[in-house]
Amino acid sequence: MSSPVTPVLADSVRFDDDGVHILDRRVFPFEHRWVHARTVEEVARAIEEMVTQSSGPYFAVLWGLALAARDTGELDPVVARERVAAAARRLIATRPTNDQPSKAAAFVLAAVDGRDDVAAAAVEGARAGERDYRDRCRRMGRAGAELIGEGARVLTHCWGDLYLLGLVEALLEQGKRPEFVCTETRPYLQGARLTAESLAEMGVPVTLVTDGMPASLMREGRVDALVTASDRVALDGSVINKVGTLGLAVAAQAFGVPFHALCHAPDPQTATGAQVPIEFRDGDEVLHTLGRRSASDKVTGLYPAFDVTDPHLVTTVVTDEGAFTPQRLHTYWD
Amino acid sequence: MSSPVTPVLADSVRFDDDGVHILDRRVFPFEHRWVHARTVEEVARAIEEMVTQSSGPYFAVLWGLALAARDTGELDPVVARERVAAAARRLIATRPTNDQPSKAAAFVLAAVDGRDDVAAAAVEGARAGERDYRDRCRRMGRAGAELIGEGARVLTHCWGDLYLLGLVEALLEQGKRPEFVCTETRPYLQGARLTAESLAEMGVPVTLVTDGMPASLMREGRVDALVTASDRVALDGSVINKVGTLGLAVAAQAFGVPFHALCHAPDPQTATGAQVPIEFRDGDEVLHTLGRRSASDKVTGLYPAFDVTDPHLVTTVVTDEGAFTPQRLHTYWD
Repeated sequence: MSSPVTPVLADSVRFDDDGVHILDRRVFPFEHRWVHARTVEEVARAIEEMVTQSSGPYFAVLWGLALAARDTGELDPVVARERVAAAARRLIATRPTNDQPSKAAAFVLAAVDGRDDVAAAAVEGARAGERDYRDRCRRMGRAGAELIGEGARVLTHCWGDLYLLGLVEALLEQGKRPEFVCTETRPYLQGARLTAESLAEMGVPVTLVTDGMPASLMREGRVDALVTASDRVALDGSVINKVGTLGLAVAAQAFGVPFHALCHAPDPQTATGAQVPIEFRDGDEVLHTLGRRSASDKVTGLYPAFDVTDPHLVTTVVTDEGAFTPQRLHTYWD
Repeated sequence: MSSPVTPVLADSVRFDDDGVHILDRRVFPFEHRWVHARTVEEVARAIEEMVTQSSGPYFAVLWGLALAARDTGELDPVVARERVAAAARRLIATRPTNDQPSKAAAFVLAAVDGRDDVAAAAVEGARAGERDYRDRCRRMGRAGAELIGEGARVLTHCWGDLYLLGLVEALLEQGKRPEFVCTETRPYLQGARLTAESLAEMGVPVTLVTDGMPASLMREGRVDALVTASDRVALDGSVINKVGTLGLAVAAQAFGVPFHALCHAPDPQTATGAQVPIEFRDGDEVLHTLGRRSASDKVTGLYPAFDVTDPHLVTTVVTDEGAFTPQRLHTYWD
C-alpha cells in the first residue's frame, strides 16, 4: 500500500541560513504565506500572534533556540549557553496552557549542556526534538487507530496537527477508511481551514459543521467516536484542549459516543486539571472573523482559549505508550 | 419606572401602500437595509433567503396575506378568498420546522372567512394576529421572569426575538438587572449581530462567546440559567430550536444550570419531537461567513438548521399560560 499523502501543514516550520520560516496559519489555506523570523523575539511574537499553533509552537521553539545558539557567534560557550537558556524562557512564556514548548526547549538545552560548539549542538538538539515528536505521534496514532473501527465516522475539534495526522496515517495504513466530521472552531476557524484542508489533502472524506452542531449529529447516531488532540493532560486524566472540547465531551457522554484524547504523555508536573492556567486571549477576537467585524459594535467578547474536560467525561487517553483509562493514566510514569 | 427601550428588530416587518417592507437581518446591524416585497412570491422568497427569521416570518406571513388580499382587487370574493388561501399555502411552505407561519395564516384566513370585503378583512386579521403575538410574548415574558433571579447571568442562543424581548422587558420592569451571555450562532451569526445588538439597545450588559464556549462557562459557575426561544415545542416537552440548543441543554444539565424554553404554546398537532421535520439548509452556508469563504475549498458543509432537545433535558417550558414542566406540558390544552 502506498503511504498516505503528507499534508502541507505537517512541515510548516523550517530553519535555514536566513532564520526560521513559519507557515502563516492565520491565512492558510487561502494563502500559502511564510513568516520569516530573523530573531528569537520574532519567533516568540509569531507564536503569540497565532502565526502558528497546535504542534507548530513546539517546532518553532526547537528552531528558535537553534537560531539563538547560532546568533551567539564567537561568544564564550558559558555565555552562549546562558543566551540560549534566556531565549528558552522567552519562548516558553509565549503561551501558558500547552506544555509542549517547555519540552521542546528541554531537548535543545540538554543538547548544548557542557558543549563548546553551542550552535552545532543546538541544531542536533532541535533535530532530536523533531524526530522524537514525530516518532511519538506515530506510536500514539497506531495506538489510537486500534480504538477506531472500519469505516468509522470520527468527530474532531480544532486542529490536532501531527497528533491527528499520526492517527489518520495509522487508520489509512490499516485500511480502515475513516470519515471525519470537523467543527469549524471559531474564532480562528482552525477546523474549517486547517483540519478540513489537511484531511482532504490526505484523501479522507471530511464534512464541516459549525461548533453548535455536533450534539445533534451525535443524538442521531451519526458519530462513532470523538477524537481530539490535547494541549495538556493532567495525571488525573483531565484533558485541557481548545475551548469547545468540553461541550463535545459532555454531549458524547450523553449520547454514548466514546471520547479519545491524544497526548504523547500526561504532564508529570500537573496532578489535576485545576492546576492548569487557562489562557484568556483578547475578547475582540470573538467579535471578528478573518479580520472582519462579525458582531454588533455594542458588545464585548470573551475568549477563554482552552477548557478543562473532567476525567469522568474521557473514555481513553491515547499516549505513545498505548491507551489508558483516565483512572490509570498516572501509571504511565511507573 | 420608565419602560425599556424598544429595539429596532422589534418592529421589522411593515405594510404600506407599496407592499411589505422587511428589515434585512442578513446585514443588520452593520446596515439598516429594508427589502421591499411587492408580491406574495417576493415575501416568500425573502423568508426562504433569510431576509428575516425567528419571529420575522410570522409577521411577514400576516402582512404578505394582507398584500395578497389587496391584490385581488375587484375579483369575486369567493375567488379572492381562494387566492388568499393559495398565498397562505405558499408562505407556510417557506420553512418546514417552525409552526408560527401557519398560525399567522390562520388569523388572516379566519378574518376573511365569509367576508365580501376581503382586503379590509385581511388587514383586520393581520392586525389581530400581530396584537395576539405581542400580547402572548408579554405574558410569556412575565411568566419566565418569575424563574430568573435578581442579577442573574442568563445564557441564550441564536435570536429569540419577541420571545426573548418579552422576557427581558419583564426582567427590567421587575428591576432584576439581568446580564446576558449570547452565543454568536454560526453560520448566520444571529447571536453576534441580532441578539447582541438588541440587548445592548435595551441597556442590558451582554457578553459574546463563540458557540463552543458555553460549556466551559457553565462548568465554572458563570451561568445561572439557559433561556432560549423555540421554533416548536411538542406536547411531550421536546424543544425544537436553532441547531446548537441541544448541546447547550446537555451541558446545562451536566453542570446544574436550569434550561427554560420560551414558547407561546405547545403545538397540539405535534405529540413528540420525532414528528418534527428538521430543515436542512444548503451546506455551503457553513463554508462562508458574511458572504466570504471561511473554509477550505476541499470540504463539504452540512447544515441541519434545527435540533431536538429531549424533554429530560428541559427544566421548564414557559408559555403564555405560565410555566410547565415538560411532563405536564400537555395539560396546557386541557
